[in-house]
Amino acid sequence: MSTFRHFEDFTVGETIDLGSTTVTREEVLSFAREFDPQPFHLDDEAGRASVLGGLAASGWHTCSMLMRLLCDNLLLASSCNGSPGVEEVRWMRPVFPGDRLSATAEVQAARPLRSRPGLGMVTLVATVRNQDGLPVMTSRNAILFAKKDIAA
Amino acid sequence: MSTFRHFEDFTVGETIDLGSTTVTREEVLSFAREFDPQPFHLDDEAGRASVLGGLAASGWHTCSMLMRLLCDNLLLASSCNGSPGVEEVRWMRPVFPGDRLSATAEVQAARPLRSRPGLGMVTLVATVRNQDGLPVMTSRNAILFAKKDIAA
Repeated sequence: MSTFRHFEDFTVGETIDLGSTTVTREEVLSFAREFDPQPFHLDDEAGRASVLGGLAASGWHTCSMLMRLLCDNLLLASSCNGSPGVEEVRWMRPVFPGDRLSATAEVQAARPLRSRPGLGMVTLVATVRNQDGLPVMTSRNAILFAKKDIAA
Repeated sequence: MSTFRHFEDFTVGETIDLGSTTVTREEVLSFAREFDPQPFHLDDEAGRASVLGGLAASGWHTCSMLMRLLCDNLLLASSCNGSPGVEEVRWMRPVFPGDRLSATAEVQAARPLRSRPGLGMVTLVATVRNQDGLPVMTSRNAILFAKKDIAA
């Protein structure tokens, strides 16, 4: 992140680099134990026998890892005011321990909110790719940002 | 959960009880530190100053807690074969430490997959409510289940 971003600083069509992270086996197991204890997220044998082809991260873990990249590379240096929800998540390929994930977000839309004049809504389409450049997940997510004059 | 479910055991229109869970402050902080370190998920003062009105759970944490309820009350006693993604998530109200969350899932659709004859796709619309009965989150999620004869 170079600079602090308000609503006005997003340009439709721009792509924002969200950096990268390495997925560790311990993190995959820890998330699965707490939130998604299906056998193919916890056990090598069960993973190999499943559609995933091997022990793989919960899809919600991948969402959460993307959220961390979004925080570190955009939201924590912004006027982010939360999000009303997610329009779509697609889990396209399994995420395996040891994978190196890189993410980008394209600004698909940016519009002022009529109901709350100090805020604008930015729609980001994020893509998470593995070390082979293959997309493992995409999401479309509307995020609220304060406008410059209001935040000042 | 009364019985093990295969694809054929889902009926469009039925509502499945997913049980309930209590949100602890430590879990809210722990999830936020790892995946969503925005101030309003980590600090009381920042929470009060935000649109959330108080320190509140990351929306992705609420998704993950719903996933755990879904595992414990449905998926772990089923022929679940994973999910291609999420069609929609709406975060409608903040989730605060101490909240008691209850979830249900309505079966919105169930159709055999042409591309993979052993599997069927079930679309669940989940609603998470707090102790006041107010919805805090809804999601629409397609999940794959093996058919009875294939699993046998």
